[in-house]
Amino acid sequence: MTITLPNPTSRQQSTCCTPTETTIPRPAESRDLARRLKALSDPTRLQLLQLVAAHPGGRACICDLTEPLGVTQPTVSHHMKLLAESGFVTREQQGKWAHYTIRPEALNDIGQRLASLSHPCS
Amino acid sequence: MTITLPNPTSRQQSTCCTPTETTIPRPAESRDLARRLKALSDPTRLQLLQLVAAHPGGRACICDLTEPLGVTQPTVSHHMKLLAESGFVTREQQGKWAHYTIRPEALNDIGQRLASLSHPCS
Repeated sequence: MTITLPNPTSRQQSTCCTPTETTIPRPAESRDLARRLKALSDPTRLQLLQLVAAHPGGRACICDLTEPLGVTQPTVSHHMKLLAESGFVTREQQGKWAHYTIRPEALNDIGQRLASLSHPCS
Repeated sequence: MTITLPNPTSRQQSTCCTPTETTIPRPAESRDLARRLKALSDPTRLQLLQLVAAHPGGRACICDLTEPLGVTQPTVSHHMKLLAESGFVTREQQGKWAHYTIRPEALNDIGQRLASLSHPCS
């Protein structure tokens, strides 16, 4: 779906895109990006991501994630579940413990999508 | 403030950082990044950002932002205020209308900070 940008009313007609029709993010794409950004918009989750990334191979046992941040394991589990649902980590159960692996490509993808917001015509 | 990562208990001691002490994001920095991400985590705000960026010089009158997204001017004003508070746009009043200018460097900064989360030792 393409949303049409009407002729500007307050200034000259020259634009970086086609003056009368600019493709802005599709609602579904914007919703998806917003959902992923929301999953990141929590200080504890940001710290957990970096903590996982600091472990060997970017992989950490949940048993090693509670103490550094001073939060309970159920709290960590909740945050890690949200991060996994948005694709920022993968989860693997090993016996008693869940292990999480960082997905740098998911974080890089968000960064690129944010940078491209300011260059809609490129 | 530095948070100390204790010795891992479930696996080998080799890590990409110093085994017993890893600097993870400072709480204040994580809160700031989380706050900016939250400002972006709304589909309408993401669309507004790209709409502003698509205008000449990345600058748009608020009067040109309501119709393309089918939202009211108070709604646009609310969203643009949040985006301005987080530094993603600047605001300039010209007579009756507010004009907003995109700040690509702010979006790029967020992207770089997200990418660096997965490389805490670099």
